[in-house]
Amino acid sequence: MQLSDQHPFVAHATKDSHLIRAFLGHRPATTPVWFMRQAGRSLPEYRALREGSSMLDACLDPALVSEITLQPVRRHGVDAAIFFSDIVVPLMLAGIDVRIVAGRGPVFSQPVRAGADIARVTAIDPQTVTERGGPIIEAVRRTTEMLAAESVTRGTPLPLIGFAGAPFTLAAYLVEGGPSKDHLAARRLIHEDPAGWDALTQWLADISGRFLALQIEAGASAAQLFDSWAGSLSPCLYRQAALPASARALAHVRQIEPPADSGMLRVPLSHFGVGTGDLLADIASLDLDVVGIDHRIDLDEALERVGREVTVQGNLDPAMLFAPAEVRAAEVSRIIAAGKVARAHVFNLGHGVPPETDPDVLTDLVTMVHDAR
Amino acid sequence: MQLSDQHPFVAHATKDSHLIRAFLGHRPATTPVWFMRQAGRSLPEYRALREGSSMLDACLDPALVSEITLQPVRRHGVDAAIFFSDIVVPLMLAGIDVRIVAGRGPVFSQPVRAGADIARVTAIDPQTVTERGGPIIEAVRRTTEMLAAESVTRGTPLPLIGFAGAPFTLAAYLVEGGPSKDHLAARRLIHEDPAGWDALTQWLADISGRFLALQIEAGASAAQLFDSWAGSLSPCLYRQAALPASARALAHVRQIEPPADSGMLRVPLSHFGVGTGDLLADIASLDLDVVGIDHRIDLDEALERVGREVTVQGNLDPAMLFAPAEVRAAEVSRIIAAGKVARAHVFNLGHGVPPETDPDVLTDLVTMVHDAR
Repeated sequence: MQLSDQHPFVAHATKDSHLIRAFLGHRPATTPVWFMRQAGRSLPEYRALREGSSMLDACLDPALVSEITLQPVRRHGVDAAIFFSDIVVPLMLAGIDVRIVAGRGPVFSQPVRAGADIARVTAIDPQTVTERGGPIIEAVRRTTEMLAAESVTRGTPLPLIGFAGAPFTLAAYLVEGGPSKDHLAARRLIHEDPAGWDALTQWLADISGRFLALQIEAGASAAQLFDSWAGSLSPCLYRQAALPASARALAHVRQIEPPADSGMLRVPLSHFGVGTGDLLADIASLDLDVVGIDHRIDLDEALERVGREVTVQGNLDPAMLFAPAEVRAAEVSRIIAAGKVARAHVFNLGHGVPPETDPDVLTDLVTMVHDAR
Repeated sequence: MQLSDQHPFVAHATKDSHLIRAFLGHRPATTPVWFMRQAGRSLPEYRALREGSSMLDACLDPALVSEITLQPVRRHGVDAAIFFSDIVVPLMLAGIDVRIVAGRGPVFSQPVRAGADIARVTAIDPQTVTERGGPIIEAVRRTTEMLAAESVTRGTPLPLIGFAGAPFTLAAYLVEGGPSKDHLAARRLIHEDPAGWDALTQWLADISGRFLALQIEAGASAAQLFDSWAGSLSPCLYRQAALPASARALAHVRQIEPPADSGMLRVPLSHFGVGTGDLLADIASLDLDVVGIDHRIDLDEALERVGREVTVQGNLDPAMLFAPAEVRAAEVSRIIAAGKVARAHVFNLGHGVPPETDPDVLTDLVTMVHDAR
């Protein structure tokens, strides 16, 4: 069977890349691998480039974003780039006042706590994200051009994965006004004002979905939705208060029509959240090609929950990056063996790369995964 | 069958209290209820009492501890008191330099990062906790006397639950040097130096176990081990790196011989952790009478995992304390109905009382639980 029989749409130049093939359910010759937060503070070349610029300014600088996005691809030899951004970037594009506080995270000048706040925010036309998305489009274009050049050097196509936060996680930040330990304010709003919560998360779905769609239309080959804090919800509350908006965000990408003469196929959609063990069956019910698995659940157990219709991605504990090499190697072998039961498996960490990681350990890890049989 | 046939040891004066009966597997006339962090910042009388004293100084002041412990019992009419303390108190008694930073949590002057740190800490004789435990013993004695007086007023015995942190959670704080989002440093140490990790957590088990034993010997009727951060471990890692030390901590209480003429029975042992959905079967394999369930899992599903040999405790989402009364009432009914399938059920929140809770909501909640049939 041809890929095109199953999947109507994928960026042509990368459709035969190991990552996209695995995302769409095939088993390439070697297990593809990339790392969440591979572009970032663990790399000295990143720290040098970022010096003097704020995080959010950096995210709107196409030259900086594309260079940062490429750094780990060149250094580690990973199978994909992930678009360098921050989950609050689409909110900033929509005109919401937010800044990133070092050592803390995103902080909003006006938290969304009640009906009036929700009305103020949802009055913003989500189309604004698309209209102000010029720097994002430009950054993706530069990045895919640089990846094309790198693909020639490497002798294999290198796809770009688009990046966005899921509506629940964005809402959790907005409602708290910043990071929090247990996202109580978000759950409080769900119970206090379910209609307001729905309005807010549907709006966030349109913001986040358009941000992803921008990246796909500019040339990204896949999209990953990050619902970092979904694990703070029970399955019942996840189904009620998070899943519908995530579905709506993903639909923005699914509805993109491929250019008629592109020969392009379906854009694979991926999802990741932390502590989502008990949510995996619900997450897998979304219109996804790939479900990311965190390190708090054994991969074989995760497979039981997500089923065989999706590709799994994960799930080495980032703490293993600091373990003796032979301990890490044994764990990598175990995860690769568990992944063989899946439709397809993309190797990743079970969470982002810690800033204090030795980059050489990541490079060795890529080799280890590619050499595994 | 007599209680005494099954259980050799429980504080005599409270053995017929609703809480102790439910803890030991019986079904009292009404569902017992208490709240984690019921003594604390949600109460104006607590904030008034605590004014001008640091948290750790307060924990060593028997008059203050007993009064604070009693406050929620008097105000809300809950079925039990929980000993007011902090999980780092036994570490402080052991001579480790720690302070509580407002808005952050416990901070250690010397984090435990490597073999030399572990050797320094584990060289301290755990017996030190018992030797310096005078203020704890005195606080428990005062508390149980005040509870006895309150029991007369209320017309029903009121037990005191002893309190301690589990070795893994204590180690997570010690290794990070303070609170952290994902306890990476602890998992890093597990992989880097498993023998050092084991030495540290076995020592912490003796510290924590002795702290609990002190409280039981001074008159507490039950003990609860708080493994707040256990949910950051996969089941595999939990079994390897946390469960053995928790078992050792609990054994300190199990080995207490009842005074020959006391007519006292077994001390019920309880456990609570956050985000432990996938660990519940392992947790239930500990020598426990009660397994606490957090709000991230539906109680009926939790029951499938812990089995029918233990009492379950939980699990109202604290966010429900801010929901409209009728929404909260429906959720309470649902949880009580789910709890009927268990051997026995003690109502609690799925996490601690948030500081911003309206105390009247808690008082009403107690009535709601007691009125449920």
